[in-house]
Amino acid sequence: MTHEIATDELALPKNVRLACRDGRQTGTTRGLAMGYVQCNLVILREAYAYEFLLFCQRNQRACPVLEVMDRGNPEPTRLAPGADLRTDLPRYALYRQGRRQADVRDITDLWRDDFVAFLIGSGITFDQALEDAGVPTTTDRWVLRTALPTEPAGRFRGPMAVTMRWLSPEHAITATQVTARFPFNHGAPLHIGDPAVIRADLKNPYFGPPVDKVPPSVVPVFWACGVTPQEAAIAAGIDVMITHSPGHGFVTDRLARDLATP
Amino acid sequence: MTHEIATDELALPKNVRLACRDGRQTGTTRGLAMGYVQCNLVILREAYAYEFLLFCQRNQRACPVLEVMDRGNPEPTRLAPGADLRTDLPRYALYRQGRRQADVRDITDLWRDDFVAFLIGSGITFDQALEDAGVPTTTDRWVLRTALPTEPAGRFRGPMAVTMRWLSPEHAITATQVTARFPFNHGAPLHIGDPAVIRADLKNPYFGPPVDKVPPSVVPVFWACGVTPQEAAIAAGIDVMITHSPGHGFVTDRLARDLATP
Repeated sequence: MTHEIATDELALPKNVRLACRDGRQTGTTRGLAMGYVQCNLVILREAYAYEFLLFCQRNQRACPVLEVMDRGNPEPTRLAPGADLRTDLPRYALYRQGRRQADVRDITDLWRDDFVAFLIGSGITFDQALEDAGVPTTTDRWVLRTALPTEPAGRFRGPMAVTMRWLSPEHAITATQVTARFPFNHGAPLHIGDPAVIRADLKNPYFGPPVDKVPPSVVPVFWACGVTPQEAAIAAGIDVMITHSPGHGFVTDRLARDLATP
Repeated sequence: MTHEIATDELALPKNVRLACRDGRQTGTTRGLAMGYVQCNLVILREAYAYEFLLFCQRNQRACPVLEVMDRGNPEPTRLAPGADLRTDLPRYALYRQGRRQADVRDITDLWRDDFVAFLIGSGITFDQALEDAGVPTTTDRWVLRTALPTEPAGRFRGPMAVTMRWLSPEHAITATQVTARFPFNHGAPLHIGDPAVIRADLKNPYFGPPVDKVPPSVVPVFWACGVTPQEAAIAAGIDVMITHSPGHGFVTDRLARDLATP
C-alpha cells in the first residue's frame, strides 16, 4: 500500500527510514528529519575493515566515524536500534573493483555475512543548527575533489573531498562558529576563500553544477567531507563496496545537538 | 655517560625521551614537558588490532586514540618523528595472558614485527591548561575502577576506569570548562560528586592511596581515563600486551593547546 508522504511525516527519522524501506522515499535526504544526525554509509568486506577504520582514525575531520557494525550485522544498534542498513536508505551505490556499477534501492540481495558497515557523520547533520543561526543551507552547496592529501592507511589513500558552501561574509562567520561546535561531525571549516589554494576542482564537482568563477560577493567556505573515505575506497579498487548514493544518507534517531559540544 | 638531569632540560619532550632512552629518567612523566601532549601506550599483536581499535572508537572518551602505528613500526611519525616507542618511555608493563608479569625499562628485545602500537591521549595532557587556569594538578589524583560499562568490541570489554581529582568547588567549575576544550583528549568530566554513584572503587585504586571517605570540603571530579583500554585488554587475557607503566607515559612533540578546540 503506497500513499502520499506528508512533509511533516518526514520530519521524524523513523518515518524517513520506513519510507525508504518500502520505496516511497527515493530522493535526497537533505532537508528531511532536520535536526537529526545523518550519516554517510560505507560497507566493505571484513578483510578491509581494519585498514578502513584506521584510515578514518587518521583523517578524523573528513571521516568522523559514528558507528561501526559488527561483522555481518546490518543493524545500527547505537544510532538507530531496529533500523536495517540494507533497506533504510533511499538509494545506494554499488562499486566493484573501484568502479560504480549501479545505483540500487535495496541491498538485501547483495548483503554478505562478511560485510562490515560504517556510519560516518554527514555535513547535513549541522544543517538545522545553521538554519537556526540564520545561515541558509538549501542552495549553493557542492562536494568537490581537492589536492589536499589524506593520511594514508594501507591501501586507502588519496585526496580529500570537501563540501563547499557559498555564504555571505556574515554567514561565513556564523557558520564557522556553529560548525566548530561539532568536532565529532567534521567540525569547523578547513578553508575559506579562494578555491584555488586547495585546488578544489570546480569544473568537475562530485555533487552540484560545474562552476566557472566565484561571484565577488560570495565567501566560499570549505569543510572536510564524508565522501572522502568513499573516494579512498574507490581509489583502492577493492573488490566490492556499497555506499549511500550522494545526498541520500542514513537518518539516525540521534539529535544533532547531542553531537555538538554543549 | 650519565649526568644529572637539570629540571629545565625535562621541560622539552625530546630531552625527556632521550633521558628515558638512556636510562637517566625512570620515574613518572607527570610534571615533565608540561604543556605537551602525553600519551598512554598499548602494544598488542596485529591479530587483535582491529578489535582494539574498534573498542577505542566505541569508547572515544576513555580511549582517545591519537596515533596508531603501522604493523611492526615503533616510530610515531605523526606525534614524535624520530622517537622510538621501544625505548622512549621511562617504564613499561609487560602482560602475558592478561597478567602483569614484569615492569621493564626497555622493550627492544621483546619487540615483534607483528606488533601494533597505539598512542592514547592521557589526562596529563591538560595539566598545563589546568595549572594556567589556577587549578592545582600535582596532588589529590587517583585512577579508579568503576561500575560504568564500556561498549564492548569483540573480546575487549569491561568497566571504565576514571581519573578522580579532588578539587575545591571553584576549581571543579574551572576544571570542567578547561577540560571541555579537549574533546579529543577525554574532554569534560563524566561525573562530579559522590563516587558511589559510579561505584568508583576507592579502596583499591589503580593509582593513588586507598580512600576511606571524601572530606566534606572537597568536590570529587571524574574523567574517563586512558587506562580503560588497557584494562579491557587485560580482561581479554590476550597472549601478550605491553603498555606504559601507570604514570610513566610517552611524551610527544605536540603542544597540548593544539589538541584543544580554539
